[in-house]
Amino acid sequence: MKGMGSQLDVRIVWGDCDEQGIVFYPKYFYWMDSAFQALLRDAGQSLRTMREGYGIVGIPIVEASAHFLASATHEEILRIEAEIRHWGETSLRAEYKGFCGDRPIFEGFEARVWLGRGSDGRPAAATIPEAFRRAFAAS
Amino acid sequence: MKGMGSQLDVRIVWGDCDEQGIVFYPKYFYWMDSAFQALLRDAGQSLRTMREGYGIVGIPIVEASAHFLASATHEEILRIEAEIRHWGETSLRAEYKGFCGDRPIFEGFEARVWLGRGSDGRPAAATIPEAFRRAFAAS
Amino acid sequence: MKGMGSQLDVRIVWGDCDEQGIVFYPKYFYWMDSAFQALLRDAGQSLRTMREGYGIVGIPIVEASAHFLASATHEEILRIEAEIRHWGETSLRAEYKGFCGDRPIFEGFEARVWLGRGSDGRPAAATIPEAFRRAFAAS
Amino acid sequence: MKGMGSQLDVRIVWGDCDEQGIVFYPKYFYWMDSAFQALLRDAGQSLRTMREGYGIVGIPIVEASAHFLASATHEEILRIEAEIRHWGETSLRAEYKGFCGDRPIFEGFEARVWLGRGSDGRPAAATIPEAFRRAFAAS
Repeated sequence: MKGMGSQLDVRIVWGDCDEQGIVFYPKYFYWMDSAFQALLRDAGQSLRTMREGYGIVGIPIVEASAHFLASATHEEILRIEAEIRHWGETSLRAEYKGFCGDRPIFEGFEARVWLGRGSDGRPAAATIPEAFRRAFAAS
Repeated sequence: MKGMGSQLDVRIVWGDCDEQGIVFYPKYFYWMDSAFQALLRDAGQSLRTMREGYGIVGIPIVEASAHFLASATHEEILRIEAEIRHWGETSLRAEYKGFCGDRPIFEGFEARVWLGRGSDGRPAAATIPEAFRRAFAAS
Repeated sequence: MKGMGSQLDVRIVWGDCDEQGIVFYPKYFYWMDSAFQALLRDAGQSLRTMREGYGIVGIPIVEASAHFLASATHEEILRIEAEIRHWGETSLRAEYKGFCGDRPIFEGFEARVWLGRGSDGRPAAATIPEAFRRAFAAS
Repeated sequence: MKGMGSQLDVRIVWGDCDEQGIVFYPKYFYWMDSAFQALLRDAGQSLRTMREGYGIVGIPIVEASAHFLASATHEEILRIEAEIRHWGETSLRAEYKGFCGDRPIFEGFEARVWLGRGSDGRPAAATIPEAFRRAFAAS
């Protein structure tokens, strides 16, 4: 899958950790969301340009899940590898793996839906444009 | 100042605390902001109704400050007392005090500006409407 | 399952919401974690008493997952129903459902492991004590 | 003050912003705290080594304050310049300035106290060791 993914490095800080000195787990989902923005960025997209260019409401989450394999603490660098692994008609699935050095920290995914507007003007799932999909193949 | 303030009780949870088992300080500002929403609510206002009713952009923060008097930890109930203590032409100052039981935890304030739109349509400080101010006197 | 679960009400605030005015999804996991603390509390337990009474390191998360069914916004009250639905030898599974009024907002679960210390003193999964399990049956 | 400060660059992400699409202000304090860790790091210090080397409990915040000069939004890079500007007997004051490109975003400070242990073993303010202070002069 060379060339199809994005990578995000974050330094874990004091404020990310709980009383046990390890990352408080909801923060991993914040970083997965950040890595999704990195995927968009690397494909020349952003939520702003997508709203303007494609007229969508957004690309909200419908499911998120993660396995936590090892703990991580402040001052460590967390490297997150992100990739869109499945394209549905109106949805996509982004997968994430987090490492501190060689130590696997977590694996997770997000399912997101392409939210346009139905004929009544209300938000509704819509077909993902081919141009958007192609932007990731090229990145 | 009886009858002019609002009170917000929050239960401090695991995820609010750092490695020393005490509240990570930026969270106090989150709670001050929450207590400001409580002030609005108790006066029959909300950011949504204010945007619609007064046509403002918002009431953004221009300064925030706090003294931290004692630490607090998860499972404790933090009681926040909030009050608008100063009304300027285009700004206001809300003051906050936090307690766990009788133990003073923090004292802080927020300065916020009434952000309308100038004649060119761009966001600009504007005069706070008398009706808005009166809503707090009555609450 | 009457009498076996806990309930947590939280008011969604401005700071929980993103640019679309809806809850930023990692916050739901923060609330799931908060609801887990409520489960402990209702059973007369807490992470502190469990460390002291059972000598554990903690009860860290190994998996977390959620489906997001509808969006929610600031000023709404989110009611979270929590329950421990599965007890393994060294792990448990807590399930959560979130509602705003009658509107289902999310469903999720956390898998957590009972982390004691092995014979070498290092953290290791350990058998969940019967007394801990019984505390929930009684609550 | 050349050579005495530290710099931290953070990319503002979706999850840092509120309904108005701008950074929710408590996040700036999280970043100020992160920049304080950067100051420590650049001086060869960390909260962990300080607890071990100096036997302190920590270096908790006693006051935090910021002026917000302009808003910032997701995808922007926020550059934070940090510096310890005042050394007291038992406390220090760190100052921060944030910029997006040439645009000043905020200015703030933190007052922190060197928390050791008194003769009764309880946490108490203590004299900042000369060696710690010198670490910053040299960095």
